[in-house]
Amino acid sequence: MATRTPRPCISQTTFIILLLLSAYSCQLFTISFQDPTGCGEESYFDSSSLSCLRCGPNQVPNKSGLSCTCQVGYRVLVSNGATVICQRCPESKKAVTQDGYGCIRCPGAIGEDGTCQCPANHIPVERDSRGNLQEEAVCEPCNNADPALSAPDATGSRCVRCQDSFINTSLSCFCGGANILAGGQCFPPNSLPTSVVSSVHFAQLALPIQSVWFSSYLYSSAASCLLFSNRTSCQALGNMCVMNTYSTSALSNDACGLYNTIFRTTAAQGHSQDITHWRTNMPWLYYGDQPGLASRVLQAEPLPIGYSFRGAYRNTQIQLTAAVYNAGGQFLRWENLTQGALQLCPDTVTRQQAAYTFGTAYKQSCVFSVSELLARFPEPLFYDVFLALRSSEGERRLVALPVLNLNLQFNGQFVNQGPNIINWYLTRRLMLVDTLSGREKSFSARPRVIRVATDIKIGFQLVPLTQRGEVYPPLITVSYTDVLVTDPLTQAVSVSFSMEYQMDQHEAQVKTDIALGVLGGVAVIYSLVKTASWKRRIETPMIDLETILKFLLFYAGDLANVFFVITVGTGLYWLIFYKAQQFVSVLLPLPEQEERFVTYVSCAFGLKTVQFLHKLLRQLSVDIFFIDWERPRSKALKPAEGGEGRSGAAPVSIWRTYFVANEWNEIQTLRKISPTFQVLSVLFLLEVVGFSGLVLRDPWSTLQRPPHAYAPEHSQVLRFGVASCLWLTVGVLQVVFFAVFYERFVEDKIRQFVDLCSISNVSVLLLSHRCFGYYIHGRSVHGHADTNMEEMNANLKREAENLCGQRGLLPNSDTQTFQIAITKRLRSQYDRILEPLSRRNGPSRLVDATANPFEQSTRAYHTMNRFLGSVIDHAHREMDYIIRDKMLLERVIGMEFVEPNDKSIFYNDESHSFSDVLFYGNEATLLIFDTLFFCVVDLASHNFILAASLTYLQQLVFRLIRDGLGRRNLAAKTLVDKRFLI
Amino acid sequence: MATRTPRPCISQTTFIILLLLSAYSCQLFTISFQDPTGCGEESYFDSSSLSCLRCGPNQVPNKSGLSCTCQVGYRVLVSNGATVICQRCPESKKAVTQDGYGCIRCPGAIGEDGTCQCPANHIPVERDSRGNLQEEAVCEPCNNADPALSAPDATGSRCVRCQDSFINTSLSCFCGGANILAGGQCFPPNSLPTSVVSSVHFAQLALPIQSVWFSSYLYSSAASCLLFSNRTSCQALGNMCVMNTYSTSALSNDACGLYNTIFRTTAAQGHSQDITHWRTNMPWLYYGDQPGLASRVLQAEPLPIGYSFRGAYRNTQIQLTAAVYNAGGQFLRWENLTQGALQLCPDTVTRQQAAYTFGTAYKQSCVFSVSELLARFPEPLFYDVFLALRSSEGERRLVALPVLNLNLQFNGQFVNQGPNIINWYLTRRLMLVDTLSGREKSFSARPRVIRVATDIKIGFQLVPLTQRGEVYPPLITVSYTDVLVTDPLTQAVSVSFSMEYQMDQHEAQVKTDIALGVLGGVAVIYSLVKTASWKRRIETPMIDLETILKFLLFYAGDLANVFFVITVGTGLYWLIFYKAQQFVSVLLPLPEQEERFVTYVSCAFGLKTVQFLHKLLRQLSVDIFFIDWERPRSKALKPAEGGEGRSGAAPVSIWRTYFVANEWNEIQTLRKISPTFQVLSVLFLLEVVGFSGLVLRDPWSTLQRPPHAYAPEHSQVLRFGVASCLWLTVGVLQVVFFAVFYERFVEDKIRQFVDLCSISNVSVLLLSHRCFGYYIHGRSVHGHADTNMEEMNANLKREAENLCGQRGLLPNSDTQTFQIAITKRLRSQYDRILEPLSRRNGPSRLVDATANPFEQSTRAYHTMNRFLGSVIDHAHREMDYIIRDKMLLERVIGMEFVEPNDKSIFYNDESHSFSDVLFYGNEATLLIFDTLFFCVVDLASHNFILAASLTYLQQLVFRLIRDGLGRRNLAAKTLVDKRFLI
Repeated sequence: MATRTPRPCISQTTFIILLLLSAYSCQLFTISFQDPTGCGEESYFDSSSLSCLRCGPNQVPNKSGLSCTCQVGYRVLVSNGATVICQRCPESKKAVTQDGYGCIRCPGAIGEDGTCQCPANHIPVERDSRGNLQEEAVCEPCNNADPALSAPDATGSRCVRCQDSFINTSLSCFCGGANILAGGQCFPPNSLPTSVVSSVHFAQLALPIQSVWFSSYLYSSAASCLLFSNRTSCQALGNMCVMNTYSTSALSNDACGLYNTIFRTTAAQGHSQDITHWRTNMPWLYYGDQPGLASRVLQAEPLPIGYSFRGAYRNTQIQLTAAVYNAGGQFLRWENLTQGALQLCPDTVTRQQAAYTFGTAYKQSCVFSVSELLARFPEPLFYDVFLALRSSEGERRLVALPVLNLNLQFNGQFVNQGPNIINWYLTRRLMLVDTLSGREKSFSARPRVIRVATDIKIGFQLVPLTQRGEVYPPLITVSYTDVLVTDPLTQAVSVSFSMEYQMDQHEAQVKTDIALGVLGGVAVIYSLVKTASWKRRIETPMIDLETILKFLLFYAGDLANVFFVITVGTGLYWLIFYKAQQFVSVLLPLPEQEERFVTYVSCAFGLKTVQFLHKLLRQLSVDIFFIDWERPRSKALKPAEGGEGRSGAAPVSIWRTYFVANEWNEIQTLRKISPTFQVLSVLFLLEVVGFSGLVLRDPWSTLQRPPHAYAPEHSQVLRFGVASCLWLTVGVLQVVFFAVFYERFVEDKIRQFVDLCSISNVSVLLLSHRCFGYYIHGRSVHGHADTNMEEMNANLKREAENLCGQRGLLPNSDTQTFQIAITKRLRSQYDRILEPLSRRNGPSRLVDATANPFEQSTRAYHTMNRFLGSVIDHAHREMDYIIRDKMLLERVIGMEFVEPNDKSIFYNDESHSFSDVLFYGNEATLLIFDTLFFCVVDLASHNFILAASLTYLQQLVFRLIRDGLGRRNLAAKTLVDKRFLI
Repeated sequence: MATRTPRPCISQTTFIILLLLSAYSCQLFTISFQDPTGCGEESYFDSSSLSCLRCGPNQVPNKSGLSCTCQVGYRVLVSNGATVICQRCPESKKAVTQDGYGCIRCPGAIGEDGTCQCPANHIPVERDSRGNLQEEAVCEPCNNADPALSAPDATGSRCVRCQDSFINTSLSCFCGGANILAGGQCFPPNSLPTSVVSSVHFAQLALPIQSVWFSSYLYSSAASCLLFSNRTSCQALGNMCVMNTYSTSALSNDACGLYNTIFRTTAAQGHSQDITHWRTNMPWLYYGDQPGLASRVLQAEPLPIGYSFRGAYRNTQIQLTAAVYNAGGQFLRWENLTQGALQLCPDTVTRQQAAYTFGTAYKQSCVFSVSELLARFPEPLFYDVFLALRSSEGERRLVALPVLNLNLQFNGQFVNQGPNIINWYLTRRLMLVDTLSGREKSFSARPRVIRVATDIKIGFQLVPLTQRGEVYPPLITVSYTDVLVTDPLTQAVSVSFSMEYQMDQHEAQVKTDIALGVLGGVAVIYSLVKTASWKRRIETPMIDLETILKFLLFYAGDLANVFFVITVGTGLYWLIFYKAQQFVSVLLPLPEQEERFVTYVSCAFGLKTVQFLHKLLRQLSVDIFFIDWERPRSKALKPAEGGEGRSGAAPVSIWRTYFVANEWNEIQTLRKISPTFQVLSVLFLLEVVGFSGLVLRDPWSTLQRPPHAYAPEHSQVLRFGVASCLWLTVGVLQVVFFAVFYERFVEDKIRQFVDLCSISNVSVLLLSHRCFGYYIHGRSVHGHADTNMEEMNANLKREAENLCGQRGLLPNSDTQTFQIAITKRLRSQYDRILEPLSRRNGPSRLVDATANPFEQSTRAYHTMNRFLGSVIDHAHREMDYIIRDKMLLERVIGMEFVEPNDKSIFYNDESHSFSDVLFYGNEATLLIFDTLFFCVVDLASHNFILAASLTYLQQLVFRLIRDGLGRRNLAAKTLVDKRFLI
């Protein structure tokens, strides 16, 4: 780009100089990418111009590639930052000095780099002590005997005092005789087995690796630890045991074997900090291996603090501190783990720190490429983890936390992977990523295998029945994955970190089971009563298959209620007790412990659906008839023929019946609440007001959370608790609003319907069972309703001024609505009148082809109208009825005690219980069904909006079904043409 | 804890040994916290037991506090890892050797650390070249003359060749004479001003700091750069200029002044990489200072690549690469900035990398404590940022990116903070956190001030009219904050990083304005036509205030539509063209550019509200009358008195009128869609299906996003686009569904109403204007409808079998519905009949106290009934009417051309346009109003759920108002008692 012709961007008619300037400044400033490793063997990378430039004559790029040095055999003549001039050393002084600026003669050979080489234990001397350059270098031997005790230093340019272990072992700087030279140190013989296992076994890959780290330092660390009690070496040995996943085998000369050998051998040294498992000068790796020790460590004594979510004693901070060592065993620092050392995945500080808030179920996971891990963890770090407490005196105390290493092999068995705590073998030290032990040849080579702590979990267990938020010491569970490094850029490792809080849920489960048993028993009894009531109402004494089926249907409904009560109770319990507690006394069930709860909710929903469908079907097949009391005005006609007369005299108009039927059709799906308002207000409360914030697995009960805060997982129990409580609360509030305010001051459709019956001179007979039903008495107090506007208005006015009789069935009573238990005889008469109609729907061969169906149905209508009218008027002796009040107990258990044997019984019913055959009278069932539907969809999808949408759809579909089929039933039963039910 | 009596946790009846064991293993393993800095002066921190232990006799803890060394005057006698034994040196050899193991006599003084001290330029010699310890140390002077040219090395223990600058300047290792020793180097005099400004001016604090870094290295770097062309020194000088925010003042001896001086002086060296601003051996800091250069750099030539969002040429990756230097000027590495070097805030890798996807409006911000910054940035790093491109040949090319440093002061002016690009002064090098230049006394002391890049923004500008996704070189805008360090733990600094993409929105705005102008003009004309039509329909010729008001109301509605079309069009445009484009050709307007759009939406909503309320009010005051055609059956009575007869002859039943009125009442708020289904399905599509994912400011059009992906800000335009399009689409689909399927196959309430009129022998006269309205002809073809069931059924059957006449007003026609334009005479007659009623509602003093209101209203009813019946029957010559079809143009512009002067005109109207006085006929207005309501709430709250809830509530409220007031109007106008409108 830089070399192409510059494109001018402003007018070329200006001065040439401006043209030139603009031409230059207009170009894109591009360069080509070059980097130090790509400059080749004769060029260096010029860090000013970011390009490769040729080195001067006789020069080669140096190691970093950023500048040039003289090539072998050349000395620096002149050097100043930018320029170096090199000159060939003369034949007489062929070697270059160590600093590169001089030429010198060598006493011996010249090395590959052009400087003088000396034999082992010798140092080259080129300058005298005052810095004067010699003509010829001298190779001086270092005197390694007492008292000089000197050896060449690390750079090999001076004789300095040699390493202590040489002096201690051999009293010279020469590790001779039977002494063993290992890891740069000198040890006396026979202190340890001479051959140690310096391979690391990666169990998941079934691959032993000859580790350069182990072969370099295992023996020396163990020997130095045992012989010199060198603390750093002991730590290094311990770290090697950790890198070997603490695994002990029959061989006692692997890392952990050596650790244990030394641990036993040095028993006389006593222990650190009053902890028996912690040998003086050695790291504390294992808790003892006695059986059952794990459970004693984990569940014997609680921590001496209490966690509290709010109030003056609020304490939710989990302060984890760790002593950090490097692989060589050096203590690096105390590190506060709440800064995120264990959380490998990057995230914002706020979210990272949410992990260490007690009660917040934290989980973080992500995927790393192996190359990232290699870059980020050049050497493994080792953590001894403590929980920091601050005593009341302000002293900081640390509680050692046990680690459950799932990869630990004890005699070849993965003992820690089993559920049996007795077999667990707890350890102390934690390592995150080990890129060291898998290096085979050299420390600079890429490791063949790396070991990553892919799953770290810190689990808290609440002390049973605590009221002060006491917990047992938390357990760190860690699981490692061995990764065979083949292609670091594409290989990926998934790591996760989680915090888990649990309590013993056994007692809660027992309590739930007891409640379920008791309430289930009550439900059986209640269902039996219902079945008995139903038997009475259909007036058949036999217990047949239908009876059993009915019992099961009733039982389904009652059992659904039992499950519903228990699940809502449980949800509410957790919601209140978990979210509102001050000192921690309960913790949420874990996701796997919630399955039982979800099963209960599903049972409740399934059973409720059965009950709902049963009720729906019954409502769709109810018997109904409108009795028109109106008689033709013309008295000349005989009443018996009145309806059929086609003479000039006015027939009784059917429009009042149409009106009443139309209104009845409209109130079929009327409810005590507005279902869409219900759906949208619950959704509003959950998602806008923010009640959905309560379903998170953390102890906070705030509704609005900061936008980027950590959001823990959802709890199914809390989801159900919040959703069901909100739904029920809003539902009940709506029912109360409609009952107390709306129906009293605005509009009460049920009462309007009863009034309409009365005004229109039409009674309604409803038979929900064979011999049981409802009666709405609608005989007009004015005698006639089929009249013109002024009379209607006058009638209404007279009634408003109390100038006429009362509307009730009995004289001087207001009671217009009744529950009726009719005799079998009345029912059979009713059926007989309707027979021609039902036959019409029967098999065609039975139909009397000649009969006109229209005529048949109108004839049936008139017969029925006359018959029922006369029954209500006590005109039929053998089908008479009495009116009485229902006893309290009868109301409560919903069953009539007196059988209507010879007389039908009309029970006064001020509470409009005829709405039982409408949606209106079954609000409880519908509300619970909607609640469960909403909650079940939500539990399955974890999406309140989806649940709301589907609930709305469900309501819509069932309303359409109820409306459509109910209208068809109404038309069939009352003989009112469907076209008038609009 | 460790010292309290252990609590046994298992039965004490077992063996004593088990008891002891268990007693120990049962306790909590606690230790007290100690750390190396807190062990005091006599103890060291034992890294094995993590506790402070006393040092041995004659020992003191060493510097790290992790072990002990011999105190001053004592030598190490024996040492092995754990134990050290110290011995006092004899009086004869009072000093300790450098290695601490021997005692020695000193030629001079003994230092504080107990070793021998030598004068300057001398080295202590304790051992001979073979390592033998001497009895007495010797202080040897280094020979600093040619040819030895030696000086003590860094540790002061050997004579080595001295630094090049000494040799170059003075030809010895002694910087004598007039030569200047600065920063450890030796320079000849007079090359640079001897006094340089070594203070850093923190402009925000108005605080100059005497910086130790500047005072140590500014002169030496400048001199070394100028004299020796030392690349590292030149870079260091450049970095100091950057630390000084590139600010140049009148003084030429501050960092940037020196840089510029050298830049000018070394013009002869030429430039690097063909870039004139990039002097060889020097860093490239400034683009030139010619006026207008910034705009030429930024807007002259696009990058030679095209960004593309999808398809085969997909290219969204922004590959930023930087050459990284440290403060000393060393080139450290090429760094890929997409790894997050510029994003100081921690976040997950996925979210961090989202920043470098072209088109994703990225913004990240967080708060750091000063102590975190100090720990994380011990020294500043300097970035020369490039955009990496890969040419088609695979060669990597880098485009240099300009930096706009907002803190740059040019002669005391913050030239870069102004909006005028002409004054901008672009630079190259970027620094993030400078904790170095604010150090006053020493490099180890805490800095007094730190400078933090608190706001970094990378802005891309699209090339106008590009179809290939070309952009100009992006501009990095950086703003620094100076923080006076007082309390690092509590002081907080907020930092942010953002990516911004913009294009020139001017053209789009012009186009919008043109559309607005044109459509606004059309709206004026259309509103004028409407006003004229209205004038005709109310039959008043004068142009009065009311006319103007009406015009404004009509204009409001039409202008609302114009705004609505334009905003929906704009939203849709951005949605489609931004989200679906392959090669980038448009970019979203920035949030500040969206304000205009939001204003348009608000206008549309406000005007639409006016129109909606206007229509609502008109609907609530419409005149309506039900004409009952039924005549009493008894022919003995005179028709004139028929309605009032209270004789035995049956009066005409009012129930059919009640039925019709009741049905009319029910269809008042009927709509062509289901509003709740609308609300919930839009919500479902947005939040469950995931259309809300489209509103994000990124180019992806996927609906479901991974849960933890980066979510950019929302775009108001896209929010409106998605919401309005979804709402309209669902609405139109519903309308189509209801029109094509539901009303045809299930239920058409409007047609049902017309049929009902016909069956019930009742006509409806609606007057929406004074002289304009609708007529539904409902005269029964059977003559009578007030009859019993069999006759009704028979009538229906006859009609179904086509055995009777047609229902239309004209013989042999089916047309039952008409638009009517009535004469003024007819209207005044109508008003005269209703006068007594309207007077009833007037001031009480006018009421005829003796008249019974009931009687008055029924009399008016009957009069009206008779009058209108006779008009329809052509019985009034002077109020006759004709029936004709409307012309196409009349239909289209909604205005009648013929004035009803002497005869009223009935226009055939098959399309049931009487529904214009119902919600049903105004679906477009309602749908648009709902859409705008939903969108406006959403734009204000950015919450679709809230918007849905409020829209539902709005619909509910207006439905209740329309229902309630409409019912009251219906009762008042038709004289049907409100109690029958249920």
